[in-house]
Amino acid sequence: MDVDIGNALGTTPGLTEETLERLDDRVASAHERIARGMDADEFGYASLTLPETTDPEAIREATDAFETPSAVLTVGIGGSALGAGTLSDALPSDVDAYVLDNVDPDDVKRLLGSLPLDDVVINVVSRSGTTAETLANFLVVRDAMDRAGVDWTERTLVTTGEEGNLRRLADRHDLPALDVPEGVPGRFSMLSTVGLAVAALQGYDVEAVLAGGRDGMDALSGSLFESPAYAYGATTYALAERGALTNAVMPYAESLETFAEWFAQLWAESLGKDGLGQTPARALGATDQHSQLQLYRAGPRDKLVTVIRPTERAEVPIPETDLEGLSYLGGSSLGDLLDAEFDATEASLAEAGVPNVRIEVDRVDERALGELCYGMEAACVLYGELANVPTFTQPAVEWGKRAARGLLGGGEFPEADAVAEKRELRIERG
Amino acid sequence: MDVDIGNALGTTPGLTEETLERLDDRVASAHERIARGMDADEFGYASLTLPETTDPEAIREATDAFETPSAVLTVGIGGSALGAGTLSDALPSDVDAYVLDNVDPDDVKRLLGSLPLDDVVINVVSRSGTTAETLANFLVVRDAMDRAGVDWTERTLVTTGEEGNLRRLADRHDLPALDVPEGVPGRFSMLSTVGLAVAALQGYDVEAVLAGGRDGMDALSGSLFESPAYAYGATTYALAERGALTNAVMPYAESLETFAEWFAQLWAESLGKDGLGQTPARALGATDQHSQLQLYRAGPRDKLVTVIRPTERAEVPIPETDLEGLSYLGGSSLGDLLDAEFDATEASLAEAGVPNVRIEVDRVDERALGELCYGMEAACVLYGELANVPTFTQPAVEWGKRAARGLLGGGEFPEADAVAEKRELRIERG
Repeated sequence: MDVDIGNALGTTPGLTEETLERLDDRVASAHERIARGMDADEFGYASLTLPETTDPEAIREATDAFETPSAVLTVGIGGSALGAGTLSDALPSDVDAYVLDNVDPDDVKRLLGSLPLDDVVINVVSRSGTTAETLANFLVVRDAMDRAGVDWTERTLVTTGEEGNLRRLADRHDLPALDVPEGVPGRFSMLSTVGLAVAALQGYDVEAVLAGGRDGMDALSGSLFESPAYAYGATTYALAERGALTNAVMPYAESLETFAEWFAQLWAESLGKDGLGQTPARALGATDQHSQLQLYRAGPRDKLVTVIRPTERAEVPIPETDLEGLSYLGGSSLGDLLDAEFDATEASLAEAGVPNVRIEVDRVDERALGELCYGMEAACVLYGELANVPTFTQPAVEWGKRAARGLLGGGEFPEADAVAEKRELRIERG
Repeated sequence: MDVDIGNALGTTPGLTEETLERLDDRVASAHERIARGMDADEFGYASLTLPETTDPEAIREATDAFETPSAVLTVGIGGSALGAGTLSDALPSDVDAYVLDNVDPDDVKRLLGSLPLDDVVINVVSRSGTTAETLANFLVVRDAMDRAGVDWTERTLVTTGEEGNLRRLADRHDLPALDVPEGVPGRFSMLSTVGLAVAALQGYDVEAVLAGGRDGMDALSGSLFESPAYAYGATTYALAERGALTNAVMPYAESLETFAEWFAQLWAESLGKDGLGQTPARALGATDQHSQLQLYRAGPRDKLVTVIRPTERAEVPIPETDLEGLSYLGGSSLGDLLDAEFDATEASLAEAGVPNVRIEVDRVDERALGELCYGMEAACVLYGELANVPTFTQPAVEWGKRAARGLLGGGEFPEADAVAEKRELRIERG
C-alpha cells in the first residue's frame, strides 16, 4: 500500500510540509503509545496484533467441518459482517456469500425464498450472543431450516465470545465454534476469526490475508513520512482539524465498494466522538464523477477526497470504432479509460483547491486487501490518538439500543418513554 | 409521501417555527417561479412535468419489440442508469436487471462472463451519444455478442437524443429507439423514457409510477406547510444555511438502498455549486446504527439525518425463544423490531439535539416510488431556488472530462497537461 498526500498540500482546507513536520513529533509519541498498547494486548490496541495472533489453523479446523457448500450466509451486524463482506465482494469465488445484517422482513423473506437451505452454511456471529438483530435473524433462519426439513445443527458455524447464548448453543449441539478474540472491537475484527471464517469457506487464501496484515504491521514506524498508514491517518486528522469534516472515499474499482462501507464503519464509529470526527461519504470512481464530483469540486470546502486504485487491472480492449468523436477510444482499453479518469479527477480536484489523497495497491487480491485494511485500521488508531478520542468504544449507540428494547417490551427504560414524546410537525399529502 | 420535520426544531443546527414561517414567503415566490418554468417547459423545470408528458405507450411500443428476456442490461452512467436502478432494486421481477455504469475492466469481464448474451436486452442510454464510458462499454458488449454469435441488432434498445451516434446507429440498424425528453437533465429523468424503459421490460406497472409522480405534482403548493416535498426542500435548505452541510439519508428498507444512491446524485450534482450545497451520505437502517450512528449522534454538528420508511412491511414473526435475555423478541416480528429501531434512532438523535426529518410512504411499490422520487426532485428544485444556484447544470465536471479525453489522445487539452504536474508526496511501504 502506497499513499500520496501531495494533493493535500496548499489546498483549502490544506496542509503545508511544515505542518506535517511539526505533526510528526506527535506521530512519534502516538506510535509509542500504540506500540505499547500492542505489546500489552490492551483493549483495542490488541486489534493491531491480529496478523500475528490469529490462528489460521483454528479457522480451517472449524470450517473443514463442512463440505464445500454452494453458499454461506453470515448472520451478523456491523463489524460482525462487514469484514467478511469486504473480502467476499472483492474476490471471486464459486461459493456465493450472503449477509443478513439487517432485520428488514421483506429482504429476509426474499433471501430465504431463494437460498438453497440444504446446501448453505450459516455463519452466525455475535460476541455477546445477545445482539437483538442477529439473534432475531438467526431464530428466523433456524425456523426456516426446520420447516424445510434441514438439520440446522449440521449447517451452522458459530463465532462468539467465551460465554452467552451462542456459546451455550454451540456446546449443546456440538456445533463448530470459533472464538471472537479478546480486546478487539467488531469494526477492527476483519483479520480475526470474525472476518476470516467466511473467507475460508469461500476458498480464499486466509494465510495471504494475514500476511498482508503483517506487511502493514511491519510498515508502522515513528514517522508519518515513513509509514503509509500513518501518513494517511495524520493527513486526514490534520485536514479534519482545518475543516475537512467529510472524507469522501472513492475507490476506482467496483470490487472495493464493500471495502468503502467497511471503512465507513471503522472511521465513523471510532472517531465520531466529543463533537469531533469525520463523516465518511462512500463514492465509487468513475461512476460518481457523474454524481458527486460536481459537489466535491464546487461545493462547500468541508471535505477531502480519498481516491483508491489497484495499479493492475484486467485487460479489456475497446474495439476500434468509427463513431463520431470517439475514434480516440479505439485501441485503448477500459482500464486505460478508468485510469485516465482517475488521474483527471485528482487533477480536477487539485486545480479547484480541494484536498485529495491517493492510495494505491498493486492488485485486488488477498494479500493486498489484508494490507489495505490493516493500514486503514492503523491510520484510524493514529487519528484517534492525535484527536485524543476513545477510539475503541461507541457509547453513543447505547441510548437507542435501550429505547428499542424498551419499545419491544424488553424491560423498563426511560429512553423508550422519550420516543412517545416526539415533537411532530407533519406535512401530509392533502 | 408524508414528511415530519418536528425533529428539526430546536436542534443544533436547528430551526424554529418562526424561521419556517418567515421562510414560507420565499417558498411561495419560489413555487411561482417553478410553476412558471413548468408551464413554459423551461430547461430543467420541464422535468417536473414528466408525470404528464411522458408517454407510456411509446415506451411499451419500443419494449414490446422484445420477447420477455431473462435479463436486461442497462449501459449508461449517472442519471442514465440510476433512475431505472432505483425501481429495479426496489421491486421484485422475474427479469434480472444489470447495469454497466462504470468502466472497470474486471467488473465488465466478470459480468460478460456470466450474462446469458442470447437472452438479454441491452438498453443503451446516452443523450448525446458520445458519453465516453457508455459508448466504450457498448462497444465492448457489442463485440462480446458478435463473438458469441448473437445478433446484437436484435437485442438492443436505444434511448438517446434526436441526433448523434446512437440515433444514427438506431436508424441504420432499425433498432427500437426511445427519445430522451428535451430540457430534462439526466438526474431528473427517472419519470421519462430514460428511467422507465427498463421498468417496462421488467414487467413493472409504468402507469402506476407515473400516477405516483402525478400525486407528487398535485401536492405542490405555495406553502411548505401544505406540501410535503417543499417541506423537505425548505427544511434541508434552512438547516444547510445553519451549518448542516451533510445530509445522511437513511432508509429503513433494504429495497431503498439504490434510491438513496439516486438521491445522492440528485442532491449533490444539483446543489453543489458556488461553495454551497449539502453532501449526501448514504446510510441504511437499522444496519448503520452499528456503523454511522455513533458519529451522527456524537460527532460534529454539521449534519441532519433523513430517515425514510414504508409503513407496511412483510410479516415475518420472530419464533418464541428461551435464549437468555431475548425472550422479549418472541411473539414480535422482524418488522416490529425494525420499526422500534427506527423510532429509537429518531429519538436518540433528537435527545442529542441532532436534527432529523422523517419521510414515510405507505409501501414500496410503483406508485409510492413515483411519488417519492418526484417529491425529492421537487424538494431539490425548491432548495436550488432558495439557495439561488443553477440547479440544472453541472459545470464543474467538465474540467475532468476534458483532462481524461486529452490523456487518451482525444485532442489537445491544457487540462491534460495539468495532470502531469501533479504535486507528489509519496509514502511507500519500505
